[in-house]
Amino acid sequence: MQSDGRNRAVIESVKPELDSGRWPIKRVLGERVTVTADIFSDGHDLLSAVLRHRHKGSPHWTEIAMEPLGNDRWRGQFGVHALGRYEYTICAWVDHFKTWHRDLKRRIEAGQPLEVEMEIGARLIERCAERAEGHPADQMLAWSQALRSEMPVGEKVDLVMDSYLLMMLARHPDRSLGSTYDRTLEVVVDPPRARFSAWYELFPRSAAPEPGRHGTFRDVEARLPAIARMGFDVLYLPPIHPIGRKERKGPNNTLTPGPDDPGSPWAIGGPEGGHKAIHPELGTAEDFQRLVENAREQGIEVALDIAFQCSPDHPYVREHPEWFQHRPDGSVQYAENPPKKYQDIYPFDFQCAAWRELWEELYSIFEHWAGQGVRIFRVDNPHTKPFALWDWIIGRLKQRWPETIFLSEAFTRPRVMYRLAKGGFTQSYTYFAWRNSSHGLREYLTELTRTEVCEFLRPNFWPNTPDILNEYLQHGGRPAFITRLVLAATLGASYGIYGPAYELIENTPREPGSEEYLGSEKFEIRHWDLNRPDSLAPLISQLNRIRRENPALHANERLVFHNSSNDQILCYSKSSEDGANIILVAVNLDPWNTQGSWLGLDGAALGLDDHSRYQVHDQLSQERYNWTGLINYVQLNPYTLPAHVFRLRRHLRSEHDFEYFL
Amino acid sequence: MQSDGRNRAVIESVKPELDSGRWPIKRVLGERVTVTADIFSDGHDLLSAVLRHRHKGSPHWTEIAMEPLGNDRWRGQFGVHALGRYEYTICAWVDHFKTWHRDLKRRIEAGQPLEVEMEIGARLIERCAERAEGHPADQMLAWSQALRSEMPVGEKVDLVMDSYLLMMLARHPDRSLGSTYDRTLEVVVDPPRARFSAWYELFPRSAAPEPGRHGTFRDVEARLPAIARMGFDVLYLPPIHPIGRKERKGPNNTLTPGPDDPGSPWAIGGPEGGHKAIHPELGTAEDFQRLVENAREQGIEVALDIAFQCSPDHPYVREHPEWFQHRPDGSVQYAENPPKKYQDIYPFDFQCAAWRELWEELYSIFEHWAGQGVRIFRVDNPHTKPFALWDWIIGRLKQRWPETIFLSEAFTRPRVMYRLAKGGFTQSYTYFAWRNSSHGLREYLTELTRTEVCEFLRPNFWPNTPDILNEYLQHGGRPAFITRLVLAATLGASYGIYGPAYELIENTPREPGSEEYLGSEKFEIRHWDLNRPDSLAPLISQLNRIRRENPALHANERLVFHNSSNDQILCYSKSSEDGANIILVAVNLDPWNTQGSWLGLDGAALGLDDHSRYQVHDQLSQERYNWTGLINYVQLNPYTLPAHVFRLRRHLRSEHDFEYFL
Repeated sequence: MQSDGRNRAVIESVKPELDSGRWPIKRVLGERVTVTADIFSDGHDLLSAVLRHRHKGSPHWTEIAMEPLGNDRWRGQFGVHALGRYEYTICAWVDHFKTWHRDLKRRIEAGQPLEVEMEIGARLIERCAERAEGHPADQMLAWSQALRSEMPVGEKVDLVMDSYLLMMLARHPDRSLGSTYDRTLEVVVDPPRARFSAWYELFPRSAAPEPGRHGTFRDVEARLPAIARMGFDVLYLPPIHPIGRKERKGPNNTLTPGPDDPGSPWAIGGPEGGHKAIHPELGTAEDFQRLVENAREQGIEVALDIAFQCSPDHPYVREHPEWFQHRPDGSVQYAENPPKKYQDIYPFDFQCAAWRELWEELYSIFEHWAGQGVRIFRVDNPHTKPFALWDWIIGRLKQRWPETIFLSEAFTRPRVMYRLAKGGFTQSYTYFAWRNSSHGLREYLTELTRTEVCEFLRPNFWPNTPDILNEYLQHGGRPAFITRLVLAATLGASYGIYGPAYELIENTPREPGSEEYLGSEKFEIRHWDLNRPDSLAPLISQLNRIRRENPALHANERLVFHNSSNDQILCYSKSSEDGANIILVAVNLDPWNTQGSWLGLDGAALGLDDHSRYQVHDQLSQERYNWTGLINYVQLNPYTLPAHVFRLRRHLRSEHDFEYFL
Repeated sequence: MQSDGRNRAVIESVKPELDSGRWPIKRVLGERVTVTADIFSDGHDLLSAVLRHRHKGSPHWTEIAMEPLGNDRWRGQFGVHALGRYEYTICAWVDHFKTWHRDLKRRIEAGQPLEVEMEIGARLIERCAERAEGHPADQMLAWSQALRSEMPVGEKVDLVMDSYLLMMLARHPDRSLGSTYDRTLEVVVDPPRARFSAWYELFPRSAAPEPGRHGTFRDVEARLPAIARMGFDVLYLPPIHPIGRKERKGPNNTLTPGPDDPGSPWAIGGPEGGHKAIHPELGTAEDFQRLVENAREQGIEVALDIAFQCSPDHPYVREHPEWFQHRPDGSVQYAENPPKKYQDIYPFDFQCAAWRELWEELYSIFEHWAGQGVRIFRVDNPHTKPFALWDWIIGRLKQRWPETIFLSEAFTRPRVMYRLAKGGFTQSYTYFAWRNSSHGLREYLTELTRTEVCEFLRPNFWPNTPDILNEYLQHGGRPAFITRLVLAATLGASYGIYGPAYELIENTPREPGSEEYLGSEKFEIRHWDLNRPDSLAPLISQLNRIRRENPALHANERLVFHNSSNDQILCYSKSSEDGANIILVAVNLDPWNTQGSWLGLDGAALGLDDHSRYQVHDQLSQERYNWTGLINYVQLNPYTLPAHVFRLRRHLRSEHDFEYFL
């Protein structure tokens, strides 16, 4: 028998709720959390329910009344206005006053005698007065006395139908037999950049303005204004640490490097130090801090790459042999994916007995760089380290610096990518680079934005990375680069490119069938001619400006795909939460041929119908078209511009020969 | 930091699992539980997983290996062979031997040196020997020594590829860093009748063979052979308790009964006693027990109606005034649904201070009748009593009598009906009586049989009840009665009728627009001419025989709707679990007109394709049709027989002019 069998309200199927409340959902500052639940009880009594929420650690709950949506489903909403974590749960109770009031109305309609009912009402109000204090209580006692007085019944009815009385009584309900949902759910609240961000990746060592010299943080600093002009707000640097010499890789991943070959920045650690040190040729710790600060002044956050692996020369290998696996022949176990061997990389042995010390040391790496002002980390291959390690590191670091953003660089199976996101990663790389067809993009984006996934995984779309030059880019030339750029920047509230390879349309693979770049910057220093006339930099600037100016593009939840008669033309829209700003995109996925298509727009998503007159205003070309209804035609030539990024302007009025659109 | 950060296996999204494991799923003796889950870890290591299960209370778990289905989804299965509750959960671990073995194969394919690998394998096998005991351990040590010996590498490879070795090693895996799913889930195991049952409801007081006399249990006993002949296996009796006199209702629910009017059996309690007493005119406790035993001998279980409410004359009202609500004028609060009043019924006040004593007393009512041999209870309006009361009563009673079946008579909102089923009701009344269109039936049955609902709610379909004479039956005459009977008996593994009103096609409502019967047995004794030539009894016998003979009709999970070109013809099939028995039903929903339709059969569900030759053998008419492919035509005349209940017979062979079908 339960502790009080009179708790009759049931609260079930609360949404959002991830894995029975094991994981928090994610929001950014200023967003809302809409909570729905099944709330009901036995019998015919009416219920009341509140959504409780608080910033985690606060002793006080704030309560917001929930409203019934019909069929026992209820809804409530709250906003999140501080970084860190919020908690929410639901309370519900059988509301005897509300029930009495509903029944009273039915009795009045049926013309039944009301005397006894008025006494019942008086008692309910009296009990409400006991729960209230001061003036409201006095007032309630007065109402209760009035219901018992000689006053004509009609006047009593007027009294209890008064909305002021009802509102006052609703503030002091009898919740003694109420139920509280048996889980407290959580929301992680991140800074706005966690949701809406444009990333630019570059190799600092290739940043020297003149060829033949190893680039430095100072050179990167000099490039900041150009990056800011392109409109990026995150500058992501591959690992900046000393690079191992033993088993160093030469150009194009060869095993026979020359003495001056710089090696891969991911072969971390040398005599100069490990994960907390800076590669001497890049500059000093002061130079790095200057870069971070200077970038921040220009609206750019520097993101560091954290790759938990060691070159054979890493100090850890000597100082902490217990953190590595040793082969029967006494050698340290290098990274393998049999039959492939990566002898320049030693992975940590996360199953070692000293795992606690290892975890503490790895945490201290994040703490070190956070102490240097870094607030964004791109984590390399997190899926090859224990999930629990990330849960713990991210949770701990965000307690101290709740504004920190972690990007998960995992390209692996869906469950694993989702688990990393649930465990705390703020943003995630995706399969975007391999979704190049209309069907593939629709299906994948629907999964990311229209299912529970959108509560915990924030996609970051990258058309290229130093590891990924996909077939579409290899073969599609400039039109392909523009198409993928527009898709990434408008489908994803967060996206990024690896440059200058991207804006300079670098598209030669190491060999046919490979996704690796020929002459990859991973193994050699490159010099880029940033002033080439065919650079996509101006288009990128334009796209990032469109992104900033249009709130529709700041989130993914309201992404809608529209019908298109031609599969080569993908059409979709995004709207701002208030519906005032709508961006409608049509992209030609065929990088070789002009394609035309009838678009069948989803009127409900756009607030349009078959008779609507509106204007679509291309934010790239500045062309404007006046459209009517939901079926319209577009034609896109990949050699001029393979995409329309329309802003939808509603018809305001017609005057003489002019039409005005908002 | 967690207790051991080296536990790397993740177990998520386990199915079936109801509300995070709060509620058990349901099975009957001999059924299987198929469990699936996402199981994965970081990195590229292989995992192993087992499904653990045990009868609740047993100290020992039985483990069954789970198999990967791809994309990190795994599956395991166990059977339930004892009444009561089973528990199940999942264990998974990173399997280093399995990983080493997979990698070894890749190394062999790539022609890599294997010496060091053989030493690693020897160590893994050595550790396995430490976990094993006796002979297997000795054998493993021998294998491990062989891998270290001078034996040629090729022979060592042969050794570790040996399936006997692999099987032995798999029996002693290293689970020291394994994970166990953090919830233990439960299954309630009921007797087969919980899933497959045919109910017959009758009023014992109308069971006298001659008119004008109050029927008795002895009269009901005399009717048992006829009920058994019709093929029913549950005989459900409305309340058999003394009936109150105060506020007694007269015929047709009138407020002015004559002195001889018997009143409603649901107005429970009089001077002769309450819920544990028997209405004297029905007979004695001995008569009742004789009926129960005699029925059981004929394969019929007697189901009692438990209605937790009191007439004003119930002993509880006098002895336990604290269990009732009192109005300000001192009277006991009668049942109401304002403006409707039910002054012959006093509901219990479940919010009263003495709720614990009330619960104990109500439990003792079930215990009393279970003590008299009753194993099936039909519970009246459970949705107007606290859910927690039912959770507690049913759980407690089934601990002592796990074979007990509870049928929930709730016709209310879906969430409430589902909550009652989750809390323990074995079977549930449904909206079937109000689903008379093709679309309505398909949609509703899909919800009941193709969603999570099928794990906890077992529908029991009733075309009529003493409270429900739907419009379709009122207007559709005999064809409507046949159609609804066929639908109930073939769509539902459990169904029931209220007779003899049903088989005698009683269809006059009290007034137009009402679902109440004119001259309802709820308020008066009726005399039925059971030998009327138009009785549906022979058809009912035939349908129940078809149900028994065809395992396809014993469950609901494999219900499939097929396309039909005419909405008036509903077509569906059910298959036995092994697929050997398939019943294909086509029903004309139009009780007035002959209807024909092209059926578009779902080949996958039936194991047929466009070229299949097969026979459909109508189990009602005994007609046989030889069909080819998936598109076939049927025509049904409501005035002969509005339904085909085909058994599908596969083509065996052709010989001379004959074709043989299985």
